[in-house]
Amino acid sequence: MRYELYYWPEIQGRGEFVRLALEEGGADYVDVARRRGRGRDAMTQFMDRGRVKRPPYAPPFLKAGKLIVAQSALILHYLGPRLRLVPRREADRLWALQLQLTITDLVKEIHDTHHPISTALYYEDQRPAAKRYTREFWRHRVPKLLGYFEDVLRHSGGPYVFGRKVSYVDLSLFQIVEGLRYAFPRRMKRFEKKVPRLIKLRDEVAERPRIAAYLQSERRIPFNEWGIFRAYRELDG
Amino acid sequence: MRYELYYWPEIQGRGEFVRLALEEGGADYVDVARRRGRGRDAMTQFMDRGRVKRPPYAPPFLKAGKLIVAQSALILHYLGPRLRLVPRREADRLWALQLQLTITDLVKEIHDTHHPISTALYYEDQRPAAKRYTREFWRHRVPKLLGYFEDVLRHSGGPYVFGRKVSYVDLSLFQIVEGLRYAFPRRMKRFEKKVPRLIKLRDEVAERPRIAAYLQSERRIPFNEWGIFRAYRELDG
Repeated sequence: MRYELYYWPEIQGRGEFVRLALEEGGADYVDVARRRGRGRDAMTQFMDRGRVKRPPYAPPFLKAGKLIVAQSALILHYLGPRLRLVPRREADRLWALQLQLTITDLVKEIHDTHHPISTALYYEDQRPAAKRYTREFWRHRVPKLLGYFEDVLRHSGGPYVFGRKVSYVDLSLFQIVEGLRYAFPRRMKRFEKKVPRLIKLRDEVAERPRIAAYLQSERRIPFNEWGIFRAYRELDG
Repeated sequence: MRYELYYWPEIQGRGEFVRLALEEGGADYVDVARRRGRGRDAMTQFMDRGRVKRPPYAPPFLKAGKLIVAQSALILHYLGPRLRLVPRREADRLWALQLQLTITDLVKEIHDTHHPISTALYYEDQRPAAKRYTREFWRHRVPKLLGYFEDVLRHSGGPYVFGRKVSYVDLSLFQIVEGLRYAFPRRMKRFEKKVPRLIKLRDEVAERPRIAAYLQSERRIPFNEWGIFRAYRELDG
């Protein structure tokens, strides 16, 4: 099966959680909108609600034969067993997706550190609210959410959420740590000692051969100030 | 199977999407935290990360035998086939969950109309930001998101997202319309003519015998100002 991933070509964004799984799973895939020529048009035509019977609400979405799956957590749930990135038992698949949905909630909150009022406004037009949001986010939400995943790893015995076998959830947690380091280097440096298991997980994922090769490749889009994780110095405490 | 639902007993909140499915599905269930006595303690003990191997991050969660499932969309995905509230084909189950996850995103945005900065602060301490968030929300997000579901219903032929057979997604869309009417009566009155299919769906769900009986019962907690949908007059334009 050749998978087609559709996502904005300029950013890691929510598509990156899917890209990491496709890479670690050794999938045969095309990152459609990043192809030369009319790749971006190929993406937007699937979102044409006049023509598509079950249009995705937004990218990322994955085309697998005739099937189109949107929502990054759901794409990972779909790919998980096919790429051997989740155990096959129903209880384990549900647990993985439950964790992934909590990561999804966290990703939205990270995005809102720079856009707390509206995505239709520039960051510069909501900067005071962004500063206040970010302060509360680091005071309450980061300790609670990353603390939760730290506890999950304590129960699993590590290094991964299912123990010794990697899953798509671990790849996403790697991306969370990487992104927080990029966006909030000073805050993250102070915080990391509170989540040693999560940092260990990040290191284990980074050293996996396929992930290491991907991170060195041009397929990995660098972090930038259009995505979820943005390095705005005045938000970094 | 007797299901146990664990959710805050004072509010509809995110638990209500699950309650509606349990009711329409005729499930044998207990709303644990609403029982007299120590119901609430029974809930919080499952969130004790020192004791529970796979603790849910937050309510709502469902106990089905030994299995615990958290995240409202995932609970509905799990219950769907068991309560005949989703078609059995994998493509249909994925489509239903994809729609439900977009509803989840919408619910978070609705919550943020009154708490755009932090859930750790009172509404009164973030009122100017709430007013600005709400204005942008009704200008951009409501038309986009409810317009999306209107298009889904146009494609399905209605009255439901799968056509003539009701699904858990429809019950959740009913709750969205009811909640927006409660929280923003003036704004919603002006907006409703743009989404006639969604309003028709709301009416169809309200007339289903089990839902109608539930809405009349004491099991339906009234809307109030502690939940997701809050009637703050100054936010209603």
